[in-house]
Amino acid sequence: MPLMLSSIAQQLGLEYTGKDIEITGVNTLEKACPGEISFLVNPKYAHLLETTKASCIITSAAHADKAAQSLISENVYLDLARVVQLFEKPQGCLENTSHLAYIHESALVSESAVIYPFAFIGADAIIGDDSVVFPGCYVGEGAKIGDDCILYPNVVVMGGVAIGDNVILQPGAVIGADGYGYAQTSFGHMKIPQIGTVAIETNVEVGANTAIDRAALDVTRIGRGTKIDNLVQIGHNVQVGQNCLLVGQVGVGGSTEIGDNVILGGQAGVADNVKIGSNSMAGAQCGISGTIPEGSKLGGSPSMPYATFLKAMGVCAPKLPELFKRVKKLEKQFANLEKTTGDINE
Amino acid sequence: MPLMLSSIAQQLGLEYTGKDIEITGVNTLEKACPGEISFLVNPKYAHLLETTKASCIITSAAHADKAAQSLISENVYLDLARVVQLFEKPQGCLENTSHLAYIHESALVSESAVIYPFAFIGADAIIGDDSVVFPGCYVGEGAKIGDDCILYPNVVVMGGVAIGDNVILQPGAVIGADGYGYAQTSFGHMKIPQIGTVAIETNVEVGANTAIDRAALDVTRIGRGTKIDNLVQIGHNVQVGQNCLLVGQVGVGGSTEIGDNVILGGQAGVADNVKIGSNSMAGAQCGISGTIPEGSKLGGSPSMPYATFLKAMGVCAPKLPELFKRVKKLEKQFANLEKTTGDINE
Amino acid sequence: MPLMLSSIAQQLGLEYTGKDIEITGVNTLEKACPGEISFLVNPKYAHLLETTKASCIITSAAHADKAAQSLISENVYLDLARVVQLFEKPQGCLENTSHLAYIHESALVSESAVIYPFAFIGADAIIGDDSVVFPGCYVGEGAKIGDDCILYPNVVVMGGVAIGDNVILQPGAVIGADGYGYAQTSFGHMKIPQIGTVAIETNVEVGANTAIDRAALDVTRIGRGTKIDNLVQIGHNVQVGQNCLLVGQVGVGGSTEIGDNVILGGQAGVADNVKIGSNSMAGAQCGISGTIPEGSKLGGSPSMPYATFLKAMGVCAPKLPELFKRVKKLEKQFANLEKTTGDINE
Repeated sequence: MPLMLSSIAQQLGLEYTGKDIEITGVNTLEKACPGEISFLVNPKYAHLLETTKASCIITSAAHADKAAQSLISENVYLDLARVVQLFEKPQGCLENTSHLAYIHESALVSESAVIYPFAFIGADAIIGDDSVVFPGCYVGEGAKIGDDCILYPNVVVMGGVAIGDNVILQPGAVIGADGYGYAQTSFGHMKIPQIGTVAIETNVEVGANTAIDRAALDVTRIGRGTKIDNLVQIGHNVQVGQNCLLVGQVGVGGSTEIGDNVILGGQAGVADNVKIGSNSMAGAQCGISGTIPEGSKLGGSPSMPYATFLKAMGVCAPKLPELFKRVKKLEKQFANLEKTTGDINE
Repeated sequence: MPLMLSSIAQQLGLEYTGKDIEITGVNTLEKACPGEISFLVNPKYAHLLETTKASCIITSAAHADKAAQSLISENVYLDLARVVQLFEKPQGCLENTSHLAYIHESALVSESAVIYPFAFIGADAIIGDDSVVFPGCYVGEGAKIGDDCILYPNVVVMGGVAIGDNVILQPGAVIGADGYGYAQTSFGHMKIPQIGTVAIETNVEVGANTAIDRAALDVTRIGRGTKIDNLVQIGHNVQVGQNCLLVGQVGVGGSTEIGDNVILGGQAGVADNVKIGSNSMAGAQCGISGTIPEGSKLGGSPSMPYATFLKAMGVCAPKLPELFKRVKKLEKQFANLEKTTGDINE
Repeated sequence: MPLMLSSIAQQLGLEYTGKDIEITGVNTLEKACPGEISFLVNPKYAHLLETTKASCIITSAAHADKAAQSLISENVYLDLARVVQLFEKPQGCLENTSHLAYIHESALVSESAVIYPFAFIGADAIIGDDSVVFPGCYVGEGAKIGDDCILYPNVVVMGGVAIGDNVILQPGAVIGADGYGYAQTSFGHMKIPQIGTVAIETNVEVGANTAIDRAALDVTRIGRGTKIDNLVQIGHNVQVGQNCLLVGQVGVGGSTEIGDNVILGGQAGVADNVKIGSNSMAGAQCGISGTIPEGSKLGGSPSMPYATFLKAMGVCAPKLPELFKRVKKLEKQFANLEKTTGDINE
């Protein structure tokens, strides 16, 4: 449903310029239709303000005069998120727990929770207030889902796992599968039963088809506010701190400890049993195999300081064939020099 | 059921040589049993014609005389595909929509579609003619599945997503999960609700457990005829052109635009917000972080021209330890030279 | 339930030292509470014996005197696995086949098997003795599951696939999706129907959301005792030998043959149509594109001998910017030398 610009501004506690028009939706500068609100963060896209059909722009005070209507913001992404929330329609089409769900008689499901058809809630499992469990989800025996959680379709939460409040698990995420642990014996790899569990703290989001393994003996932990993208692999016993960002297809080996506010770029890999200090950053496809101090910025595989990576692998590596020729030429020059001056080695 | 060779040739509009025998199936040259048809594409395997037990070979005219029976083809892979189609038995064992499926009363399911037990079809969703939805699939509210589609078990199509005709979604594929978008705030990463959608055009195939995220505001798009392998990650707002091949475990960052006929090798990664020109190719594990002109061939991480990659990383890199020694030797030779001739620097 | 130390020792055929105390569980040295048993493998952690609260340690005879109670072992990981088995409680909360499962009338399900709600067992499928099929699993027509198997939630086994005895499939694993095979034609990529199958031998474990594709024509095979981690991609026609370890996010291209006892580190990739000899090892993120002899140890992308990789990419690569400067300096010195001595090239 459309909202008046004045109403949006009031709900968000922001100022606006121009007329109090009706806003029908949110879109990018390029795709917006008349009636929609858009946003400008990076000044290098300011020229799009001349051609956009958006009727209002969320932007800093510096650019507010460049559009007929502006919503003035000191943190455009934050206020974009808040505006989008006003227009968001949550996924799903049911409002009550379905009789087509399987709920074990000993499970405790809040009356305000919604359990879709074909979801399975095991013995002694707990589903908190206002949480939603979509079709095809499995919540194992004794697992605990907090309040205001969303388990999208086909999420698997194995027995005993604890999920905090306000956690979002995207479709196909698997929390608490067995860790990858075997004893090497003369008769092959013998499975070490994985009797630990997983704890996911509040405000965590886990991406589609991501897998977070249960600990061998104690707890794999994902800290408060950490956001994990799709197809990420978290090994057993891993400890991830608070407010980390683990981008798509990252892999973290068993028993590794990651501090707070760490960013791992897409497809980056971290070996098992290492420590990554807080506030560190690893570029895409980075391979980390050793312990990393706080505040590091890394790139490459094996990893090196990010600035070194850019020079060594980005600038120098493609010139290696040429460098080999240059060194060969120098060697030849020396050889010639020797012919004329005699051996210059000691 | 077996087919006469003459019948196969007639159906495909091809010539054959030898007797009109009964063909019982299709197999490789090494594994074929008498009665089966096999194929030869690469002349370097021509020696296998001497030992194969296959009773007939699909091959070019040049090799047709080397087997008792041949089906003569100008595009062996194409005609292999057509022959296999004659022997193919589709997956699945039900022919009608099951009363064990959940179909919302407002959904529009074609009478010729088959919906398996434990599939969930949400409000206002549309399932086209002759499409098949296997067990455990979720089709969210307002999602549209075209004609002749196959959704294999446990596929998730979130609300509002549009799937064209003749699309195959392999098991566990997730289309339309939330994109990975957060505003950085003083109180942590704040989710930007992802209110866009995904459009998958006709003749697309998506591999097992692949994830294609919904756009933040507008549309993530996969172009006609593009084939995506297993465990691939496509970020929000990505635009993939027509007839591309994205091989297993490829990752594409948000808002990136990929042209037509692009091939990305296994585990290749593309950063967010870049453009890859049509007809480009990236080798396996390639890491692309900048805009790439049409027709590029790339390798390495960070990426460089493929020919350079082969020389720099394939040939030169393993010789780096030796190169460092050679340079050190040259430096020593110079130092000795200086001792005897005086400083040769200016 | 707790066990007496003497009972544990007797069941495992091991000696113990100290008092015959009651053991309540198993944990790490750092996390163990009084009453729990822990373990010491690596002597470098021997100092933890001074502070651990564990009441008993599984360790070699050499360290047995450092704890009040010890269980003496010649293979600590093996005996840890055996002790954990004594305390393990299997996942799941049902003991009989549910009437909420779909079992085709022609399927053969052992009376001792357990089929959970919302599992689908297709026509002519076979489920062996004591096997457990969790909710949301799909077992296609004619698929055969051996004895003592566990299919965790949302596992997909497509039609015709054969799974041996004692196989564990973690949640979301997909066995037998179509391989990635297309004929290139003037009208785009034409699907080659994948009419082969997958055979998984006894004692194999497959990780969460891993995908193992069916062969184009014959059989994709995973050998006895091989353990595959999460999010691994196995292409069509691949042959994996016995007792291999494929760590998280590994990718193996189509038709590749892997020998016995091969270890592929996390995120390693193997191209299609190559052979990897038995007893080989590839480091994390390694990229293998050629045939590899038995017993190789590889690292890097493209791969090189592991020792070379450590030196070339670990030690030398970060010093490339410096090396380029050193070569430039040498060239300058030579140029100066030429000025004073005349051209020293031939």
